[in-house]
Amino acid sequence: MTNTDNPAVDLENLESQISQLKSSFDELKKDNPSNKLSMVVFSGDLDKILAAFVIATGAVAMGMEAVMFFTFWGTPVLRAKNKRPGKKDIMSKMFGAMLPKGTCEVKLSRMNMAGMGTAMMKSLMKKKNVASLEQMLEMAEELGVNIFVCEMSMDLMGFKREEMIDYKNMTFCGVAKFLEEAKDSRIQLFI
Amino acid sequence: MTNTDNPAVDLENLESQISQLKSSFDELKKDNPSNKLSMVVFSGDLDKILAAFVIATGAVAMGMEAVMFFTFWGTPVLRAKNKRPGKKDIMSKMFGAMLPKGTCEVKLSRMNMAGMGTAMMKSLMKKKNVASLEQMLEMAEELGVNIFVCEMSMDLMGFKREEMIDYKNMTFCGVAKFLEEAKDSRIQLFI
Amino acid sequence: MTNTDNPAVDLENLESQISQLKSSFDELKKDNPSNKLSMVVFSGDLDKILAAFVIATGAVAMGMEAVMFFTFWGTPVLRAKNKRPGKKDIMSKMFGAMLPKGTCEVKLSRMNMAGMGTAMMKSLMKKKNVASLEQMLEMAEELGVNIFVCEMSMDLMGFKREEMIDYKNMTFCGVAKFLEEAKDSRIQLFI
Repeated sequence: MTNTDNPAVDLENLESQISQLKSSFDELKKDNPSNKLSMVVFSGDLDKILAAFVIATGAVAMGMEAVMFFTFWGTPVLRAKNKRPGKKDIMSKMFGAMLPKGTCEVKLSRMNMAGMGTAMMKSLMKKKNVASLEQMLEMAEELGVNIFVCEMSMDLMGFKREEMIDYKNMTFCGVAKFLEEAKDSRIQLFI
Repeated sequence: MTNTDNPAVDLENLESQISQLKSSFDELKKDNPSNKLSMVVFSGDLDKILAAFVIATGAVAMGMEAVMFFTFWGTPVLRAKNKRPGKKDIMSKMFGAMLPKGTCEVKLSRMNMAGMGTAMMKSLMKKKNVASLEQMLEMAEELGVNIFVCEMSMDLMGFKREEMIDYKNMTFCGVAKFLEEAKDSRIQLFI
Repeated sequence: MTNTDNPAVDLENLESQISQLKSSFDELKKDNPSNKLSMVVFSGDLDKILAAFVIATGAVAMGMEAVMFFTFWGTPVLRAKNKRPGKKDIMSKMFGAMLPKGTCEVKLSRMNMAGMGTAMMKSLMKKKNVASLEQMLEMAEELGVNIFVCEMSMDLMGFKREEMIDYKNMTFCGVAKFLEEAKDSRIQLFI
């Protein structure tokens, strides 16, 4: 408590301390994660993708932003059912044929039982008024859920952009872009 | 640096700046996530559920709060072995019969080998003094781990509340409640 | 706005308020998570481990720290191909023989098709210039990715430290150490 006999000097000192504190505060605040949810959708199973969409749309309904990064087995789920990809090499054709084409062909991770379990689950979901994967995707688009598609996976599996579904907020990108979003998110999940 | 010849005016100014900074600070602090761990327990595999409980009880032992949100294949694991659910429709009966009833019937995600691998793992765990799933659940209850059960999954699989185990901190809720907890947590996992 | 006729008293008061605010601020800042990514590598599948390494090395390339906690099926992947573990009991020998020994023997979680799918994926990765798991591990070591190995898993599966690969930043530890890192991280994933 020095210089109290000269208030002006102390005032200057305090003012500078306050302005310094303010700028440190603003920096910390800027660095704080946004009200956002980021998830990696790695799995290509009906149940897990359903869970991912329930969580993402739920987050948006709560006022959060949501980013879904589709990679590996999650990628083929975003293929459009009735689009033709054009010319492909043999490997890409094989992957294209073996992987599910779009949300309709996706199967349960358990109890698939040659498709019977999956069909049973789908009929149950209908009966219990749980949205189907197609409806979920539509709802996600309307709510503004951001879909990122992993370019490395697209390349590995030989998928072309023109094969993918039409979706307003769809971005093709790499893992760095996802990590940037995840770093700025309050919730991160790997599904 | 104006008004220095009238310290009183500056003092007022500084005081108001400080009180503003204080309230912004309190807001930021309130917005900070709690010392909490939230996880989605989606899987119904012995190994994954074991990992989930090891992490949750470990977190509480470290002074954190822990929330486990059981959904989809995770839900049947919480059924009580010796409770009768009462009347059910055919679909619910089928699900009830096909899914593991409680912690004892849960199987490994790999190397189950018609139950042999699972039995082997269980005997190994005993030998190595690793707590069994039953013991884990008991420990979690004692430590105060919060268990949330997904209502949508209960409904889909036709489970009733009276079929579930007795557990002190068990709540039946939807995804929104989970997201609220996850948003306020330092660690979030999807298992 | 009291005491304005005695500026010295107010100055003292303001100064103490500022210093209090400063220390609360420093505390909050210290409590903020570091620019770090922590993940549990539970899975032992080629595709998932590949994803884990892509994410971890990507994070480090972006200036983050990265911690990978290998547990359960992830543990055998870190065994060295050409190291001899010495004497083991029967259970440990069985686990040792049945689980993949190192990165070369790891398989796809889907479409393995008796090894054909895995071989196909590996040749595709080579063609598309995607780093193999061996190269990823090397890159991770160079970039300084921290690898933690779960001691409980090592013990359960009967692995010894001298069987594991040589890796600069490898630590053997329990779940508590992982949780400490995860709590101090901006991103947490369970893979």
